[in-house]
Amino acid sequence: MDTANIEKTHKSSPAKTAGKADVEALVRLCADDMAAVNAIITERMQSDVAVIPALAEHLVSAGGKRLRPLLCVAAARVAGTTNLHHRKLSAAVEFIHTATLLHDDVVDSSQLRRGKVAAHLIWGAPSSVLVGDFLFARAFELMVETDSLQALGILSKASGVIAEGEVLQLMKAYDVNLTEATYIDIIAAKTAVLFAAAAESGAVAAGASSAGQQALRDYGLNLGLAFQIQDDALDYGGTTQSLGKNAGDDFAEGKATLPLILAVKATPEAAAFWHRTVSLRDQTDGDLAQAQALIVESGAMAKTMETARHYAQKAKDALKGFEPSDWRTALEALADYSVERTK
Amino acid sequence: MDTANIEKTHKSSPAKTAGKADVEALVRLCADDMAAVNAIITERMQSDVAVIPALAEHLVSAGGKRLRPLLCVAAARVAGTTNLHHRKLSAAVEFIHTATLLHDDVVDSSQLRRGKVAAHLIWGAPSSVLVGDFLFARAFELMVETDSLQALGILSKASGVIAEGEVLQLMKAYDVNLTEATYIDIIAAKTAVLFAAAAESGAVAAGASSAGQQALRDYGLNLGLAFQIQDDALDYGGTTQSLGKNAGDDFAEGKATLPLILAVKATPEAAAFWHRTVSLRDQTDGDLAQAQALIVESGAMAKTMETARHYAQKAKDALKGFEPSDWRTALEALADYSVERTK
Repeated sequence: MDTANIEKTHKSSPAKTAGKADVEALVRLCADDMAAVNAIITERMQSDVAVIPALAEHLVSAGGKRLRPLLCVAAARVAGTTNLHHRKLSAAVEFIHTATLLHDDVVDSSQLRRGKVAAHLIWGAPSSVLVGDFLFARAFELMVETDSLQALGILSKASGVIAEGEVLQLMKAYDVNLTEATYIDIIAAKTAVLFAAAAESGAVAAGASSAGQQALRDYGLNLGLAFQIQDDALDYGGTTQSLGKNAGDDFAEGKATLPLILAVKATPEAAAFWHRTVSLRDQTDGDLAQAQALIVESGAMAKTMETARHYAQKAKDALKGFEPSDWRTALEALADYSVERTK
Repeated sequence: MDTANIEKTHKSSPAKTAGKADVEALVRLCADDMAAVNAIITERMQSDVAVIPALAEHLVSAGGKRLRPLLCVAAARVAGTTNLHHRKLSAAVEFIHTATLLHDDVVDSSQLRRGKVAAHLIWGAPSSVLVGDFLFARAFELMVETDSLQALGILSKASGVIAEGEVLQLMKAYDVNLTEATYIDIIAAKTAVLFAAAAESGAVAAGASSAGQQALRDYGLNLGLAFQIQDDALDYGGTTQSLGKNAGDDFAEGKATLPLILAVKATPEAAAFWHRTVSLRDQTDGDLAQAQALIVESGAMAKTMETARHYAQKAKDALKGFEPSDWRTALEALADYSVERTK
């Protein structure tokens, strides 16, 4: 399938209820905060050891969507913060995320990241591992400066869960019989927990009520699930150019993601195909195209997107306790965007 | 040179003033605390993802000397602590250390660690990287539980400096013209800063005065320098069996450590030897033996040990403000041990 096909599926989505599905409204609202966050990121990735800022800059300047720090800022603002602690927390969240990207790309031997050659292919895996450690440590230094042990607890716990999720994913590679429940466990741990922690720590820094903290955590968790499921759909449906990373990476690496899990038992022929290409890692030219076709024809792609929309809706539902506002509308639009985006 | 030679050199050392040079006195004084620390370590390395405790256990059960957590405990006790926060801090310090060992062994492609096959050769480099991340995160969770933002700040800053030191060492590989000053910078960052932070955070958790915190930090820093310089001497002078890691690793990896730095310009022939074997990485059988011989004959080994004793003495001097006690005597004996040990 091509990206046009994804867009078509999405345009009929019942989840689209909050105006234009995009991240732009939130980006505009957070502009001042994010300018400050970006300045903190640039300042705190400096080091006398020149390769550290060079390598970090390679990834950081490529941008990405900065969704996690945006979420931290937005949570603090929705909760009506009267301080600026969320700025350092947001920078810390981005450092944790960047550190995990550096390590994941080494673990997966990825070639591309954010549209650029992966850092380990330029500076070597050892530097990528160590610069990841450096950014992780700097994240904790920033958190300490916010004086919030509660936010530190949330983000340190999340960091452990992320590593557990990555290890679990590694252990389950090539397993075409992965259950949907285990898949959700993996993406919750490796992706959604940091979205949740970003939002919750922002709320904590803002002095939100327990209910407010929980609502923003729930929003972040469900947004993260929707976001990752859409990511996994795009890996079979997008193009390398639009994604900024190689389409088909999950298939090539034998990761059992939701599109594969839902397609794997469609027919005996399909089961044999997935067994050969994923369980036995016997792939040849044309197999990715066939995998993409099987995922569409079996209905697995449509079901995957339905699942993503389910979590996007749960994310929006989590916001119902907040008064209507530009912030709430922007967060709802972000939830829709997470499942309607084509890159 | 052989280990007997090292012992002989040390027996004439003027630094040996505090009774028997060993770690046993400190181990005895810290026995109750360390039993509790070991229980925390075992409890907190658990995970539902089975490979995580299996891999962590491989390294943790191999023991090592547990010098860093011992130092944290001892600092708290010397400072007269009335609480037990130093136990969780000590476990956190050991987790940080274990995480850096896991990553270093991947970075250096080491074969042996603590007398066992290096973890990445059993479970693979990806698991070693991710389990290192997991332990690092768990370290921060433990620190949060001590409610001490000051201790968290000390240990998060140290973690960043360790990563910087490791990267700097990587950048300076194969550089036989490394200055002694840069060498000291590297080992301060990659080793001594964690010794310093372990002692300082223990003192902070105990509510020590600023002067007490600084004295224990200075002790830790100088002990760490002495310890690492001795380690680097042993890499040219010890045996694989006694060290629990491969003797000659630094030479094989082209790390310019103090014995090499002090030997490199002894004669034109020696300079040519080091240029070929380290700068050009052209090593053959017998080169390690020749490297060892050159280091002894040039006087570099004796000077290296003199430098180690210099820092051991500075470590002991840092304790002068404390009343004489079994604890102070034991810490002085540890400083002597750090430079008199043969493994």
